[in-house]
Amino acid sequence: MTGEKPEILLLSGPNLNLLGEREPDIYGSAKLEDLVAAADAEAIRFGLAVRHLQSNHEGDLVEAIHAARQSAAGVIINAGAFTHYSWAIHDALASFDAPVVELHISNPAARDDFRHLSVVAPVATAVIAGLGAAGYPMAVRAMAELLGRDPAH
Amino acid sequence: MTGEKPEILLLSGPNLNLLGEREPDIYGSAKLEDLVAAADAEAIRFGLAVRHLQSNHEGDLVEAIHAARQSAAGVIINAGAFTHYSWAIHDALASFDAPVVELHISNPAARDDFRHLSVVAPVATAVIAGLGAAGYPMAVRAMAELLGRDPAH
Amino acid sequence: MTGEKPEILLLSGPNLNLLGEREPDIYGSAKLEDLVAAADAEAIRFGLAVRHLQSNHEGDLVEAIHAARQSAAGVIINAGAFTHYSWAIHDALASFDAPVVELHISNPAARDDFRHLSVVAPVATAVIAGLGAAGYPMAVRAMAELLGRDPAH
Amino acid sequence: MTGEKPEILLLSGPNLNLLGEREPDIYGSAKLEDLVAAADAEAIRFGLAVRHLQSNHEGDLVEAIHAARQSAAGVIINAGAFTHYSWAIHDALASFDAPVVELHISNPAARDDFRHLSVVAPVATAVIAGLGAAGYPMAVRAMAELLGRDPAH
Amino acid sequence: MTGEKPEILLLSGPNLNLLGEREPDIYGSAKLEDLVAAADAEAIRFGLAVRHLQSNHEGDLVEAIHAARQSAAGVIINAGAFTHYSWAIHDALASFDAPVVELHISNPAARDDFRHLSVVAPVATAVIAGLGAAGYPMAVRAMAELLGRDPAH
Amino acid sequence: MTGEKPEILLLSGPNLNLLGEREPDIYGSAKLEDLVAAADAEAIRFGLAVRHLQSNHEGDLVEAIHAARQSAAGVIINAGAFTHYSWAIHDALASFDAPVVELHISNPAARDDFRHLSVVAPVATAVIAGLGAAGYPMAVRAMAELLGRDPAH
Amino acid sequence: MTGEKPEILLLSGPNLNLLGEREPDIYGSAKLEDLVAAADAEAIRFGLAVRHLQSNHEGDLVEAIHAARQSAAGVIINAGAFTHYSWAIHDALASFDAPVVELHISNPAARDDFRHLSVVAPVATAVIAGLGAAGYPMAVRAMAELLGRDPAH
Amino acid sequence: MTGEKPEILLLSGPNLNLLGEREPDIYGSAKLEDLVAAADAEAIRFGLAVRHLQSNHEGDLVEAIHAARQSAAGVIINAGAFTHYSWAIHDALASFDAPVVELHISNPAARDDFRHLSVVAPVATAVIAGLGAAGYPMAVRAMAELLGRDPAH
Amino acid sequence: MTGEKPEILLLSGPNLNLLGEREPDIYGSAKLEDLVAAADAEAIRFGLAVRHLQSNHEGDLVEAIHAARQSAAGVIINAGAFTHYSWAIHDALASFDAPVVELHISNPAARDDFRHLSVVAPVATAVIAGLGAAGYPMAVRAMAELLGRDPAH
Amino acid sequence: MTGEKPEILLLSGPNLNLLGEREPDIYGSAKLEDLVAAADAEAIRFGLAVRHLQSNHEGDLVEAIHAARQSAAGVIINAGAFTHYSWAIHDALASFDAPVVELHISNPAARDDFRHLSVVAPVATAVIAGLGAAGYPMAVRAMAELLGRDPAH
Amino acid sequence: MTGEKPEILLLSGPNLNLLGEREPDIYGSAKLEDLVAAADAEAIRFGLAVRHLQSNHEGDLVEAIHAARQSAAGVIINAGAFTHYSWAIHDALASFDAPVVELHISNPAARDDFRHLSVVAPVATAVIAGLGAAGYPMAVRAMAELLGRDPAH
Amino acid sequence: MTGEKPEILLLSGPNLNLLGEREPDIYGSAKLEDLVAAADAEAIRFGLAVRHLQSNHEGDLVEAIHAARQSAAGVIINAGAFTHYSWAIHDALASFDAPVVELHISNPAARDDFRHLSVVAPVATAVIAGLGAAGYPMAVRAMAELLGRDPAH
Repeated sequence: MTGEKPEILLLSGPNLNLLGEREPDIYGSAKLEDLVAAADAEAIRFGLAVRHLQSNHEGDLVEAIHAARQSAAGVIINAGAFTHYSWAIHDALASFDAPVVELHISNPAARDDFRHLSVVAPVATAVIAGLGAAGYPMAVRAMAELLGRDPAH
Repeated sequence: MTGEKPEILLLSGPNLNLLGEREPDIYGSAKLEDLVAAADAEAIRFGLAVRHLQSNHEGDLVEAIHAARQSAAGVIINAGAFTHYSWAIHDALASFDAPVVELHISNPAARDDFRHLSVVAPVATAVIAGLGAAGYPMAVRAMAELLGRDPAH
Repeated sequence: MTGEKPEILLLSGPNLNLLGEREPDIYGSAKLEDLVAAADAEAIRFGLAVRHLQSNHEGDLVEAIHAARQSAAGVIINAGAFTHYSWAIHDALASFDAPVVELHISNPAARDDFRHLSVVAPVATAVIAGLGAAGYPMAVRAMAELLGRDPAH
Repeated sequence: MTGEKPEILLLSGPNLNLLGEREPDIYGSAKLEDLVAAADAEAIRFGLAVRHLQSNHEGDLVEAIHAARQSAAGVIINAGAFTHYSWAIHDALASFDAPVVELHISNPAARDDFRHLSVVAPVATAVIAGLGAAGYPMAVRAMAELLGRDPAH
Repeated sequence: MTGEKPEILLLSGPNLNLLGEREPDIYGSAKLEDLVAAADAEAIRFGLAVRHLQSNHEGDLVEAIHAARQSAAGVIINAGAFTHYSWAIHDALASFDAPVVELHISNPAARDDFRHLSVVAPVATAVIAGLGAAGYPMAVRAMAELLGRDPAH
Repeated sequence: MTGEKPEILLLSGPNLNLLGEREPDIYGSAKLEDLVAAADAEAIRFGLAVRHLQSNHEGDLVEAIHAARQSAAGVIINAGAFTHYSWAIHDALASFDAPVVELHISNPAARDDFRHLSVVAPVATAVIAGLGAAGYPMAVRAMAELLGRDPAH
Repeated sequence: MTGEKPEILLLSGPNLNLLGEREPDIYGSAKLEDLVAAADAEAIRFGLAVRHLQSNHEGDLVEAIHAARQSAAGVIINAGAFTHYSWAIHDALASFDAPVVELHISNPAARDDFRHLSVVAPVATAVIAGLGAAGYPMAVRAMAELLGRDPAH
Repeated sequence: MTGEKPEILLLSGPNLNLLGEREPDIYGSAKLEDLVAAADAEAIRFGLAVRHLQSNHEGDLVEAIHAARQSAAGVIINAGAFTHYSWAIHDALASFDAPVVELHISNPAARDDFRHLSVVAPVATAVIAGLGAAGYPMAVRAMAELLGRDPAH
Repeated sequence: MTGEKPEILLLSGPNLNLLGEREPDIYGSAKLEDLVAAADAEAIRFGLAVRHLQSNHEGDLVEAIHAARQSAAGVIINAGAFTHYSWAIHDALASFDAPVVELHISNPAARDDFRHLSVVAPVATAVIAGLGAAGYPMAVRAMAELLGRDPAH
Repeated sequence: MTGEKPEILLLSGPNLNLLGEREPDIYGSAKLEDLVAAADAEAIRFGLAVRHLQSNHEGDLVEAIHAARQSAAGVIINAGAFTHYSWAIHDALASFDAPVVELHISNPAARDDFRHLSVVAPVATAVIAGLGAAGYPMAVRAMAELLGRDPAH
Repeated sequence: MTGEKPEILLLSGPNLNLLGEREPDIYGSAKLEDLVAAADAEAIRFGLAVRHLQSNHEGDLVEAIHAARQSAAGVIINAGAFTHYSWAIHDALASFDAPVVELHISNPAARDDFRHLSVVAPVATAVIAGLGAAGYPMAVRAMAELLGRDPAH
Repeated sequence: MTGEKPEILLLSGPNLNLLGEREPDIYGSAKLEDLVAAADAEAIRFGLAVRHLQSNHEGDLVEAIHAARQSAAGVIINAGAFTHYSWAIHDALASFDAPVVELHISNPAARDDFRHLSVVAPVATAVIAGLGAAGYPMAVRAMAELLGRDPAH
């Protein structure tokens, strides 16, 4: 918990640490820390706090979701390439009883074939994709909706 | 055009006129007019106007997209069942040069197999799914982001 | 409603208006109006009324099903070629809470491959196929059974 | 032959001897003998006789169909699970020159995937499915139609 | 009938009304009316008349084909996106006993995967694809060949 | 019933009568009667009795399962080749309300492709495979666990 | 054993008892007993004896193969429809160490799709198909070759 | 080059030398030389010359396409059965920078399944199929269109 | 023609010239000339002559089949690897009106997956496989049967 | 090694640390430590020791298997979701020369489609599934069988 | 043999004679003779000689491989498009007992789908792809490694 | 950077630490350190330095590739089993702008089916497979070619 505000766990999967450097025509030029900051700002509007973890290790993401079972009101996950094959993350999310928002910077359905299957989707409450950097705060807002929270002002 | 505000075409496909009556455990109890009103309210915040059309006729949706080529700054489409086979709508959207947001009330990836293929997705800029009634204003907000607009107040 | 008798909505999909003219070796030489009359006669035996609509427009069939939610005790549908791809009709039927009988003049399983998949079947209570013209009154009788009605005499 | 009336061979495949006991939510609570009695009663109305065989042995069903080549005016078959893989029954039916009605108590298309393929269907004249116990007399009536018989009274 | 000349029904499916505006790198800059005029001019050379219908509504095309059963010597159809899924149009064409020419402006086999399946092709006599605007008069000429007509001069 | 002890029905499918003779590198050199004896010995430890049936006839196995509905506390089934296509056995087991243990001497997943699909598995409570002769008593022990029985001494 | 001559087990599967009656355009007009007689005559030329079994019961064929392990020098099998799904027969043949000849009256590869897969083929030494009635003696001759026997004269 | 007229390479693949003899119900009774003559006559109208090669050898066709890189303004190819698997011809055509017209006498989409895949199509500019003998001059005319040539008179 | 005896064209496809050298555990140690000699000897018994061609060139085999249309009473073909993809040979054989026997030294169904599809089979009258060297004379005998010839002595 | 007893490596994959908390209707209410204790107790009966590792990191499991090559007499692995895609674990197990038992708490064949493929199975000696908590000691006992050990008392 | 040096057969398949001219962005601007010269130079370093054959005829390549059975120490093959369907070349290579190196100028796995299947690969010892012109000498060096030869200086 | 020489990152994936111990018939008896030493020696010839990392953790390999974006002139990767499913590694390599060489000790195309798909290949510049230990220095040499470097002597 971050102080007394309900916490949202925001997870970024493999290669997302390269945001702003890697294939900017697809992923934009904003850095991951900028996106997290924007998500955080949006969270504050709803009286929520964001805890962010980026990892290239599947096991770390699985364990962060486990921890969220105690500490978080919801999970927002941009699982990167793990989206397409990590049934371990699928199972971890299936064990999480609060809302899950699947987030993508680009629109996977408009890209390579292997990106058309999401193993996260069957256990996601909602999906936000293709909004670029704006997707991060939008996902927070979506989570706020799912949690039934109004903006604080 | 609705007065001088840029217009967003909001399309609702087959069976969405039953919202609030049909399978409320999946689609919620709000009526379509409530959702459109919420979208409208959100649009006003961004200085945008929403023009809404619900139709159970594929050809009507195709032609509304054609008309949008002249009159609209973006298209938000919840194509209902057409999502899964209407290549005519796909082709119409492909001819539309401004942003397209694909919208679903539930999360199709977590439902029947036939709902896992979207023929709209390859020509959509962004996707919003699974947020229930809240998805309608959220899609407007997403569109505002894609159009680079700030909230007016 | 037709007077005070419970009404059965009988739907005939695309190309069925050609019955009696088109490929008579497959579909027989009776005209659609003859089949509807036979269905009607059978309905009267069970104190039921038949309302019939033939349309080549998917949207018309969807909307007739919507209307049936208020007015009909059951739907009998020979969806013609729509049987094999109209998920819009599937969704409309899924929203209809009373019995649905899927009807075919020929036996689709014994014809072209594309006729082996029915998207209507998963939401149909019962199926009647391959009886030619006799299928229409038989489907009414089947509906009467599903509604628990005895012949009036 | 049963006296001088034309005979209909009614076949019930594996596990149908459990009717009324097994999964009553799917198959209803009537026993197989009740269904056969209802079929028989309907047959009498058309001046027909029903000879019934239930077997859990594929070979018995094959041989009953062989015998029907001499003695029966039509075959009604509820092949149970054999519906989905017994090409031996398919071949036996293909050698039978009179009408064949495929009968199911539930609607296989609305159940498990493996029930979506019928190897009986390509050699069936007609199909009756999903009518529960009422399907048995209905199949007799369908057979009477295919044989061009009027009710005797 | 247009006067006394045999009539060719020329059908253009969904989105073809945008010709000349939409994706000109694929479809060229000629407008649909130009193509129809060219087809007409070619028809005159063979003592034929062209009746043209463009529609974004599947049912309209189905019904135009029905009408052609009485009035037309042949059907030329550019079914647009309906090419790939409209079994209703397939069935309508199957009921038409004179020649059918399937027409495409681009070569679908060299484009997206979904364009590789034509449900029109199995009931088409001939196919003309990839000739751009020139395909329209060429299809008329092909029809003239199928009808065994010589140029009038 | 075998005396007063609860009975376990142990079924061995086609070709298992050849155990000890056939392909001993895969199936070992013990004979089926030895395996049944070992199963029996293990059953006694838990106060259970084993009734064994080997048959090469699908219908016999189906009927043994039917009989078990009255007389047996559980079914252990090594369905041999029937494992891979006998939906009749699948349906019979589905009608059996007590535990079912699927048993294989070798590990089918490590052998021919056709052995990778088990139609028994979806209706089995547990699976024991690859233990050779030891699998028979082990399956009894597994059944004892499922029945909540302690070893008698 | 038939006297002192080595024995060939000749198996005919389901529906082959109808030979000469069923679909004579495919299977010819000779009866099964004629074919067996011709096979027998050919066997005598090579100092072999034929033991023939026709059965519509899969289990009977399996058990005949088991018995052949002691008594027969080779198995010739026309498995009829079992060819396409009886893995039990496949397994039985796999346990038989002497030559196996797969025999078909017609050429399955030139017929229905389901006849293109033979589960017997992977365990057959040789295949003879499409020779009609002549296939039976030809299969005996093929077996004689596989056994290294010369004609007696 | 044939004199000073631009040359069109017309290729006919395997078995086309049998035209007029082989399966005349599918391919018509005209001989290949008649078709080539008709193509030639049409070419003259546009100031073009046709060079024709028929070969049953894939390598010959590949090499003719190579030669055409220097000498021909376009290639018309009826690749016969090679249409469905000769990636070597595909690659040769891919290296040819001028227009390619794929030509078929019958309509492959309305015949055997294996004829539904064309490996030529992805590298063809245009397709002409199903016009019988008339397809040859029609393909020349199509080529003339692609080359922007007017009839000379 | 070879003198006045009806001629059988015997074709051996690619790599069969290596017989006796290549993979003798699969193909045996006899050389191709030995097999042809054995076929010839068998042919003489039936008053037939064998003309043999081995080629590694698909086009040569196609053309030999074309020539056989005039000169041969039947074709026996061991197409080697071409069996699995040469639709050109398929089409050539389809144009040949007399019997075709497909011949294989080993049993393709018991070998690599790619050998399970034969494109020759749909146009073959009969199939002989798995008899090793003995298959060549056996195929001649099969051809003699198909031609209705008796042994000359 | 644990003292002088032969050691069994017991591996639990991702999310198994949640046992007792996560989806108790599927996985039961026992905690992983309880299951390991039960396995341990069973091991002692056979003079074996259990070393247990649970990890959500694929690499950790791979490396534990590597270490087992020196220290363990067998591996029991419940790979959790890794069962379905970790070819790295597959390869690690393939390098382990002693017995491997694949263990699952539930029966994967009776659950989601993605759980039907096990990449562990092809390199497993035996499989134990569906026994709930009892599976852990049962797997130890299975391992003892595979190692040929008797219970010590 | 080229003098006394062991010979390497270097095969180039269809369309490779166009190297340097065809699609230079994919295949580079070097000509085939340049690549062969570079291969030759590398061979000399290892005391080897290169014999090169380019052919657009599958049969020529098959026969060159046959000849190599006597004369060559290894085969390097860039089979061009034949890579993807020539099972005849596959079988020829399978009969060659010394090393085979599969060579590609580009990386087929990064190009069209049809290039993802290599029928050469299952019988290749090694693969070199994607190195452009440098691949030819590199393949020689790889062959030298496989033959255990050191550079001569 | 290693001193002033350009650096090549050489990555070895899961289980490669067992080289020399594991399945030596497939992978040879050299140890990984021997292979790296050989690669290093070859690198020195080209004025390059090798930095090597072996890891059984996908995340470690992803991060090493990230680091290489700053420090390495090229990446050589033998991804072991990750080759077949790690889209995370695929994405990391896609973000690396210099050459990538995919390396395998054995030839995956000649082994298990699951090894036929490489998710690394679409982002690899070149592929070296099947050369055993020699593949490591060969891959360095290939990288030198891609970097346009000459051997230093």
